[in-house]
Amino acid sequence: MSWKLAQRADKMNPSVIREILKVTEKPGIISFAGGLPSPQTFPVDAMLEATQKVLTQDGRSALQYAASEGYGPLRDWVAHDLKKQGMDVSADQVLITTGSQQGLDLVAKILIDAGSRILVETPTYLGALQAYTPMEPTVVSVASDDEGVDAADLRIQAGSGADAARFVYLLPNFQNPTGRTMTEARRAAVAAVAAEVGLPVIEDNPYGDLWFDAPPPASLASRNPDGTLYLGSFSKILAPGLRLGYLVAPKALYPKLLQAKQAADLHTPSFNQRIVSEVLKDGFIDRHVPTIRALYKSQCEAMLAALEREFGHTGHGGGDHSLQWNRPAGGMFLWTRLPAGLDAVKLLPKAVDHNVAFVPGSAFYADNADPRSMRLSFVTASVSQINIGIAALAQTIREAQAAL
Amino acid sequence: MSWKLAQRADKMNPSVIREILKVTEKPGIISFAGGLPSPQTFPVDAMLEATQKVLTQDGRSALQYAASEGYGPLRDWVAHDLKKQGMDVSADQVLITTGSQQGLDLVAKILIDAGSRILVETPTYLGALQAYTPMEPTVVSVASDDEGVDAADLRIQAGSGADAARFVYLLPNFQNPTGRTMTEARRAAVAAVAAEVGLPVIEDNPYGDLWFDAPPPASLASRNPDGTLYLGSFSKILAPGLRLGYLVAPKALYPKLLQAKQAADLHTPSFNQRIVSEVLKDGFIDRHVPTIRALYKSQCEAMLAALEREFGHTGHGGGDHSLQWNRPAGGMFLWTRLPAGLDAVKLLPKAVDHNVAFVPGSAFYADNADPRSMRLSFVTASVSQINIGIAALAQTIREAQAAL
Repeated sequence: MSWKLAQRADKMNPSVIREILKVTEKPGIISFAGGLPSPQTFPVDAMLEATQKVLTQDGRSALQYAASEGYGPLRDWVAHDLKKQGMDVSADQVLITTGSQQGLDLVAKILIDAGSRILVETPTYLGALQAYTPMEPTVVSVASDDEGVDAADLRIQAGSGADAARFVYLLPNFQNPTGRTMTEARRAAVAAVAAEVGLPVIEDNPYGDLWFDAPPPASLASRNPDGTLYLGSFSKILAPGLRLGYLVAPKALYPKLLQAKQAADLHTPSFNQRIVSEVLKDGFIDRHVPTIRALYKSQCEAMLAALEREFGHTGHGGGDHSLQWNRPAGGMFLWTRLPAGLDAVKLLPKAVDHNVAFVPGSAFYADNADPRSMRLSFVTASVSQINIGIAALAQTIREAQAAL
Repeated sequence: MSWKLAQRADKMNPSVIREILKVTEKPGIISFAGGLPSPQTFPVDAMLEATQKVLTQDGRSALQYAASEGYGPLRDWVAHDLKKQGMDVSADQVLITTGSQQGLDLVAKILIDAGSRILVETPTYLGALQAYTPMEPTVVSVASDDEGVDAADLRIQAGSGADAARFVYLLPNFQNPTGRTMTEARRAAVAAVAAEVGLPVIEDNPYGDLWFDAPPPASLASRNPDGTLYLGSFSKILAPGLRLGYLVAPKALYPKLLQAKQAADLHTPSFNQRIVSEVLKDGFIDRHVPTIRALYKSQCEAMLAALEREFGHTGHGGGDHSLQWNRPAGGMFLWTRLPAGLDAVKLLPKAVDHNVAFVPGSAFYADNADPRSMRLSFVTASVSQINIGIAALAQTIREAQAAL
């Protein structure tokens, strides 16, 4: 039988992380690899109560086909919540998506032609690269540092005329994979460049609510609403298994995104939207999210303390022959750099032998990957597992250095 | 701000049906327009019980990220159910999708290049056209009659070499929009042509379980498993608001479909999959589906009887100056042809004035639409509404004929 694949299918690849996670599926392993929120934080009781209410009071509507835009009260909630954060959003700009991953797929469909240049941070979220790849863009990495993309390089890469980049994709808060946050000054500079050269911004914010001590600076969308398409998610503040996210689009873009959404899956499950809308009533999030913040902060601090204990410095000491790491102000991830001479991909199987796992950072680069980089999630393992796991990782590194 | 849309976005259009449904959203209207399953058939109590069980027993797993392939026990159930229908399917060929609409989107992504020829029935399912359009195919309508596509024309349109069609998209059972079913002889002929010329088949089967008196003939996939990609859905046998469908792929295609799925939304909501898997335990479907069949059969019979009463024949009598209609053996739709001189698009506002609505059939043609065709759904309205609605429709038609 002559199944002929589309050209774009050749460019699609299995997720590197997915393959890595298979390696790490070993009983008893302590995994810092996956990006799984702590299941402790899932509001099971609230979900149970909301589901009963939804099915009992209006079950048949919750189980019927529904509008592609999303459930009205949930769209209202999103608009209201973003307004509290300083964004000028009306509910008719909100499109409920089947997880924010779908938002990235819709963005790709309406904005990327084969060969279009799109700009990303260095490194960037792997799932976004996967969502964009089927539409066959040329992905360009913008120079980045601990504060995010470099505004000067962004201006250079933006290009102009027929060669102008279609957009820059940014994750300003507690970025996946690095855990870094764009400072206020950097946001101002990036927003100014984008506005000046007319470069559209895709702002992805799944982690913004997970701050430890203070909320991050105002979003890019709040600085340039017509030039920013903003993506949010309920995966990290409620639960990812619901697959509920949203995008907020400038009014000129909304109709095309809606058509793409309708063609993609008609609408996001009405059942899930109504349940979450019920859960969100009466300020639930304002009581719930602080408990996630406190948990993740304690886990992050435990990992930082364990690293300090093992390596004898606070992250950037110890020179090129020690592990280096950053100190996130929120989110789920910590970014590290192995000592000179080591390679994270080669180190992984040795770490697995020591019953600990991570994701090599090279998975997150569109090009010119740093082979020494490594992503550690601090939210899936408990504090005692973190202590054991970091000790095992340090032992693996010491052994690998001794063998150099 | 310079948002530049992808070329494919120009080809995307708002759903005609969606626009029509807006016209028909008038209080008190009797609608034969939408394709909404009867909410009476939604198993609210079973859903309530299953949700409680899932959340109480393993709620945290149900709310966590999950495998892109789908929930294991649900994939097993699908494979087992299809085996009972004579298909040779293993669970590792089953990919759970966010509604079967998503299956169409994934098919488009991995099989359609810009300009690829794809073949469809005349008329065909509008949602499939919408899912395929963003990948910019050339859509070719194959000549069709009351039994589905014509095998001889299929052979001609299949083409060969670089011009070979990528696939033919078929809906053999109680098709949307026509309600027609491919006979055994036609299936054999179509499967033989497809195998002979190496033409891949996309077989869409959302309605197959909704037969009135006898199950439809065996699927095309059962005749040519390696040459057929099969799509199924829980929307019509449980509830559409869950957005749960599946596709069954030849093993050679599965990995690419899985990569496309992962990029599209990571995975179908694990919450929904586990609940449905719980509902399906212990033969629930075998008790539930017969109640849907009986209800839809009674509604279809009521509509046929009302049409006979109003127009004085059984569907194909009365000549070119009377309404013509078919007699479906299952599903949700009945296909009609207006008397000579009338146009369904022009008739619709007059029908709405008489408090009844339908979908003009022209929405369902890739090209050369029949302006006299009209789709009537018999499952959303009650029997007494059907009687009133068909009388109003007949009155509308008589008035329009008198004004010719």
